[in-house]
Amino acid sequence: MLSALDLARRIEAGELTPAAVLDKCAEVIAAREEEIGAFIALDLDAAHRRAQDPAVAAGPLRGLPVGMKDILDTVDFPTGYGTTFHHGHRPVSDAALVSMVRRAGGIIVGKTVTTELAHLRPGKTRNPHNPAHTPGGSSSGSAAAVAAGMLPVSVGSQTGGSVIRPAAYCGVAGFKPSYKLLPTVGMKCFSWHLDTAGLFAAGVADVAFAASAITARDLRVDQSTPAAPKILLMRTHIWDQASDDMRGAVEKTARAAEAAGAKVSDVDMPQILQDAWDAHGTVQDYEAYRALAWEYDNHRDELGPLLRGLLDAAAGIDADTYDAARRITKRARQALSDLMNGADVILTPSAPSAAPYSIASTGPAIFNRLWTLMGTPCVNIPGLRDEAGLPLGVQVVGRFGQDRGALEAAHFVELALARLNA
Amino acid sequence: MLSALDLARRIEAGELTPAAVLDKCAEVIAAREEEIGAFIALDLDAAHRRAQDPAVAAGPLRGLPVGMKDILDTVDFPTGYGTTFHHGHRPVSDAALVSMVRRAGGIIVGKTVTTELAHLRPGKTRNPHNPAHTPGGSSSGSAAAVAAGMLPVSVGSQTGGSVIRPAAYCGVAGFKPSYKLLPTVGMKCFSWHLDTAGLFAAGVADVAFAASAITARDLRVDQSTPAAPKILLMRTHIWDQASDDMRGAVEKTARAAEAAGAKVSDVDMPQILQDAWDAHGTVQDYEAYRALAWEYDNHRDELGPLLRGLLDAAAGIDADTYDAARRITKRARQALSDLMNGADVILTPSAPSAAPYSIASTGPAIFNRLWTLMGTPCVNIPGLRDEAGLPLGVQVVGRFGQDRGALEAAHFVELALARLNA
Repeated sequence: MLSALDLARRIEAGELTPAAVLDKCAEVIAAREEEIGAFIALDLDAAHRRAQDPAVAAGPLRGLPVGMKDILDTVDFPTGYGTTFHHGHRPVSDAALVSMVRRAGGIIVGKTVTTELAHLRPGKTRNPHNPAHTPGGSSSGSAAAVAAGMLPVSVGSQTGGSVIRPAAYCGVAGFKPSYKLLPTVGMKCFSWHLDTAGLFAAGVADVAFAASAITARDLRVDQSTPAAPKILLMRTHIWDQASDDMRGAVEKTARAAEAAGAKVSDVDMPQILQDAWDAHGTVQDYEAYRALAWEYDNHRDELGPLLRGLLDAAAGIDADTYDAARRITKRARQALSDLMNGADVILTPSAPSAAPYSIASTGPAIFNRLWTLMGTPCVNIPGLRDEAGLPLGVQVVGRFGQDRGALEAAHFVELALARLNA
Repeated sequence: MLSALDLARRIEAGELTPAAVLDKCAEVIAAREEEIGAFIALDLDAAHRRAQDPAVAAGPLRGLPVGMKDILDTVDFPTGYGTTFHHGHRPVSDAALVSMVRRAGGIIVGKTVTTELAHLRPGKTRNPHNPAHTPGGSSSGSAAAVAAGMLPVSVGSQTGGSVIRPAAYCGVAGFKPSYKLLPTVGMKCFSWHLDTAGLFAAGVADVAFAASAITARDLRVDQSTPAAPKILLMRTHIWDQASDDMRGAVEKTARAAEAAGAKVSDVDMPQILQDAWDAHGTVQDYEAYRALAWEYDNHRDELGPLLRGLLDAAAGIDADTYDAARRITKRARQALSDLMNGADVILTPSAPSAAPYSIASTGPAIFNRLWTLMGTPCVNIPGLRDEAGLPLGVQVVGRFGQDRGALEAAHFVELALARLNA
């Protein structure tokens, strides 16, 4: 994989140019894209022209190539939102996050494959570690492009588990920041209380670097040794739905962190968080029935069966049911804040297992949806593998608004795992 | 003016058809639109075709004609967002609220004039009560169309004071619901923590009817006598910036409500709310610099001088300053909730005065911005006039999520004022 941080440092030091990085990406894309299918649109020529602009390398992203999930509007690339009927659509303005990447000196080389409207119907992307397995979704192309070494940075989004899950399946670092840290303006909406933009890069320090560069916030974790965090190990009420390998990976991670100096304590999942886990679907589906009203009312029969079924059922959710789910959310956020008082992060699986066999499904979001609803920062930590050699991701969940803390704890854990594997 | 509630009842009773209501609107539009300039796009033929569909009159909005502010995406009308460079743009999907109006059986007859990107640069609209005066903004056309009797219902939005202020200036009921009660998906974003969609109609019971029909929520206030509310009279720290007429109108309203049985008590504005009032601009401008990044980065010189200047300055707001403003917001919301404990609504001016002379400016939002930041429901109550005969609007502010309570209190006050004037 391409380390964004390493490339940026070498560009900053004058040892490398954005054009040379692009050449490297183009080489890997030429070798692997046909098999992986991470892109729905790609323009390396335009990227090369942009790489000639000296302002690009002077920006905090140093002219690094970036992949943009195809639910974010772009003027210079078609934006089809993973549908048949929006295919070829040309937005009149860029999404806010697209502009922010450009302002930071990122070069958007293409649009990465999304599932249909960022829900569950898969696109063409395959897992770079085994093309017979799913890359996860909905940010399939963004995760796979980084995992395959085609790009150092990519942008995705999560409404259920669409950043952390594909990051875990593809073995890359994924960062779902606190709700609204990254604007979703110009990103196709599925659920306005849940949609969260996020980032992918090779390792935790890379994704923190990219987040810092794009937001002009102090989020980098590479400039000092991360402090030993206080970690709550939460196996959750669905622990029995995690594979043996995944359970082992989480336990191993906890021991590695402990051995490196972290304080790890077990914590049960309070009932209110289980209630919130249940409430996620109500909030998501009620909002999707309105956010995707035009698509449903005009193209229902062209939607995939899962999304069509979701929206059919969602039409029947009334405002009282939705309001009750929102009240549970509010109470759960407070309870989570109380639970995490004195701790830095929760450690929990990123997904039930490694990437499942078959690209016909993108896998379940059961270990993600609660944290999306809570709005808390989540980081997928790569580095572990199952018996078949497929990546296993573990997740740290930080406190709302403490994104730097979440990234730092994730980096600590990542380093602890690397020491263990060394 | 056209009472939405009265028209809907007559359609429901079979005394009137949607087509007949459209004819009435068309007649007023023919007589007044040239002078008022409420519409940027209008399609009465398409509206008439839609009025023939029996499903329309069966919906809760009963086939009523609706005007849609031109920052909401519509597939069947151009959507220019009040700019020169987006003029003629055709979105590929409807905004969620557009679909919700259609699902409810509303007939969208046209797009109403917005100021540039819902900021301050005025469009062509004039105040129906005196065309030399501003209708207010940014929802200029939506307020003026209802005030002139051209439409019974229209949709607008508020980031500073863009629903309540034009409603006050034009002498109609305006309803800014709790933050996110009406989705902003597909509405051009200025500030994601502030943008709030809202509604205009002749009186409070009309706007409550429309809100209820569009959201399928129990928001109607016409089906029982409103209970006497507990009202906090808040003159605010900028009371000296309200005109004598406006101060008199607020005092008169308080006395009228009291005479009708309401409990009215004076309340000072706590310092934290004054701090939040100051913080509004930081939140708005920081977010606008990102939400409108594409417009600023590509069309800066085509923007009006006020918006250009705002964005120039906003580029310098750093994340720490923004985060501090967000923390003030959070504390202020809690303080406001505590302050309103045991009360139903706050009574305060909707604007500093009646609509100012000249259409070169849309007037100040100083009596609105705090409540937008607080996310609380606000209702402009029409019925009073200044010495020159121009409407004076007073505002009630409800508790967050208590939209029905805010509308009911507003209706109580409106009836009390009507009795006083009778």
